Amino acid sequence: MKLTSEQLLDLSVGAAFLGTGGGGDPYVGRLMVQQCLDEGLTVEIVSPDEIDDDMLVIPTAMMGAPTVLVEKIPSGEEAIFSLQRLERHLGRKADATMPIEIGGINSTIPLVVGARLGLPIIDADGMGRAFPFLEMETFGVYGVSGSPLAISDEDGDCALIQAVDNRQMEWLARAVAIRMGGSAYISEYPMSGADVKRTAVPNTLTLAIKIGEVLRRARQTHENPIEALISFLPSTLYRYGRVIFSGKIVDVLRETKAGFAIGRVKIEGIEPFASAMEIEIQNENLIARVDGKVKAIVPDLICILNTETAEPITSENLRYGQRVTVVAVSVPEIMRTPEALNVFGPACFGLKEPFTPIEQIG
Amino acid sequence: MKLTSEQLLDLSVGAAFLGTGGGGDPYVGRLMVQQCLDEGLTVEIVSPDEIDDDMLVIPTAMMGAPTVLVEKIPSGEEAIFSLQRLERHLGRKADATMPIEIGGINSTIPLVVGARLGLPIIDADGMGRAFPFLEMETFGVYGVSGSPLAISDEDGDCALIQAVDNRQMEWLARAVAIRMGGSAYISEYPMSGADVKRTAVPNTLTLAIKIGEVLRRARQTHENPIEALISFLPSTLYRYGRVIFSGKIVDVLRETKAGFAIGRVKIEGIEPFASAMEIEIQNENLIARVDGKVKAIVPDLICILNTETAEPITSENLRYGQRVTVVAVSVPEIMRTPEALNVFGPACFGLKEPFTPIEQIG
Repeated sequence: MKLTSEQLLDLSVGAAFLGTGGGGDPYVGRLMVQQCLDEGLTVEIVSPDEIDDDMLVIPTAMMGAPTVLVEKIPSGEEAIFSLQRLERHLGRKADATMPIEIGGINSTIPLVVGARLGLPIIDADGMGRAFPFLEMETFGVYGVSGSPLAISDEDGDCALIQAVDNRQMEWLARAVAIRMGGSAYISEYPMSGADVKRTAVPNTLTLAIKIGEVLRRARQTHENPIEALISFLPSTLYRYGRVIFSGKIVDVLRETKAGFAIGRVKIEGIEPFASAMEIEIQNENLIARVDGKVKAIVPDLICILNTETAEPITSENLRYGQRVTVVAVSVPEIMRTPEALNVFGPACFGLKEPFTPIEQIG
Repeated sequence: MKLTSEQLLDLSVGAAFLGTGGGGDPYVGRLMVQQCLDEGLTVEIVSPDEIDDDMLVIPTAMMGAPTVLVEKIPSGEEAIFSLQRLERHLGRKADATMPIEIGGINSTIPLVVGARLGLPIIDADGMGRAFPFLEMETFGVYGVSGSPLAISDEDGDCALIQAVDNRQMEWLARAVAIRMGGSAYISEYPMSGADVKRTAVPNTLTLAIKIGEVLRRARQTHENPIEALISFLPSTLYRYGRVIFSGKIVDVLRETKAGFAIGRVKIEGIEPFASAMEIEIQNENLIARVDGKVKAIVPDLICILNTETAEPITSENLRYGQRVTVVAVSVPEIMRTPEALNVFGPACFGLKEPFTPIEQIG
């Protein structure tokens, strides 16, 4: 499939939704891909079903705080440089790239890399959403090594990291990303086509496009876009979603700390939602509580949407006074296994509450 | 020259002297080399005059806070791992290793690497003393690139850094060293034999051995070891030294911050030295003042010695109540050029005072 400009618009909206607040501003990423399309380059998206088992796939991404990214715009060459660094290290050319997470800018960085290098982009990712840490990828959950990882900045600095495990890789790469100015561009989890089929969350790029399309069409036909989206989900791997709150943002606490956007947002309820919802954030929305009671919890998606337009709002764009609706969505089964929860379940974020699927929360 | 156990003892004392407080505890480094000698391995030290211009030299070192090193003992394999990482990257085996600084543990790490890999160690270094930052090497002052740098820890983690300049290399590598636990082991400034001859401070390993020997012999013959040392200096590249203070340590402020041992020490004078001397420390002793007046300043050496034994005291071993004598020594001309002062002169440490050679200070 060759991506069109219209699909790109839909993708940036859908990826912001799946990013659950994180992954960086989709606007910047969209502009970067649009420039490729304007230059006549091709963004070729291929299904994981269609790829050869022995191809070399090198995923590419931004690493850092989304709050930083808004002011430190990438040149577009950084991720390419990281991919080529891994190619040289591995002594082999990549046959494709793909996203490590389907959120915000990280769903579009691989499209820029693919367009500029003439590589296909695989329609899949390693998080099925966005997560703040690099070890939180289904690739790693199911045995792919994140190392070697290459990380580059806009000046041409590059580090190649080989760590004993994926957590240590994150720990070391994060320090470099911070010193590169708070955001940098990586390639990691180099793997075979067979590994992609076995470990990735499939078809999330096209899912993001479809989510954007559902919201757009609903707006065009004056349906309720949030209702349209919830009706659409059962036809996808994500199966289930519902509105868990609606109200007005009355408080946003957000700081860039240790390379992350950390904070919480408080939403005062509008009928039929009484009281207030508090959502904790580490780049992404991690847990939503009303009066201390869990209403949704990571890794299920907690998406904050503009109530009127259904536009997803990323963490760095949350503002006092915004009218928002919070939608929770169940994640694919591959992300709810004990192995998966061991890597990106609530305890991995220091949360005391156990994972409870959104379908089972009252 | 094949290093003997007696020379190793002298070396560890002389290197602690030249380290001007920094470079890490020489005791740990000495034990590591002694173990090599006990195993029957050879520590072969060669003069820079004897090496081939086209040989590949890969210097090796510890990077981090000396205060951390005391409690986080290296396995001895880390620096070897970093050297081999650079060999793989460069596609060529090293013909020799050498110190990047002639201070404390960093004068002995290359001896361990050389002994274990069967490589000669070149009798020279890149600082002519110890400095806290990796860009502060005469190699870099005179045009050798510090990158690629490899950095490893005791667990087997490794990062290979290619930075746009040597300062950025330090900036990125320091972040990794901190996350590796505050100390790590590096190889950097890979260069030719010709570059060593052109940019290194020559014969500093044998100088350190001789300094240790001078102090030891003076003690054996009941001469004053400090006077003996000062009489010895004019026969070396360091030419000149004198006692600038003597007294009792009455205050030590020291913290491990941003990967460095930072602090200051206050010494109350004993006749003929009135008043008190304050010395500022960043791993190494940077500036010595009495009543705000400069008595010695970086890059000249400021060495704090035990008044009774003339044993050099490293920053992490300074204690309240110690009777100490402070000796200042002029550094070789290669370290006092405008290019050199631009990289490791007083302003590079945030000091306002200009460099004044110790010979010209009253």
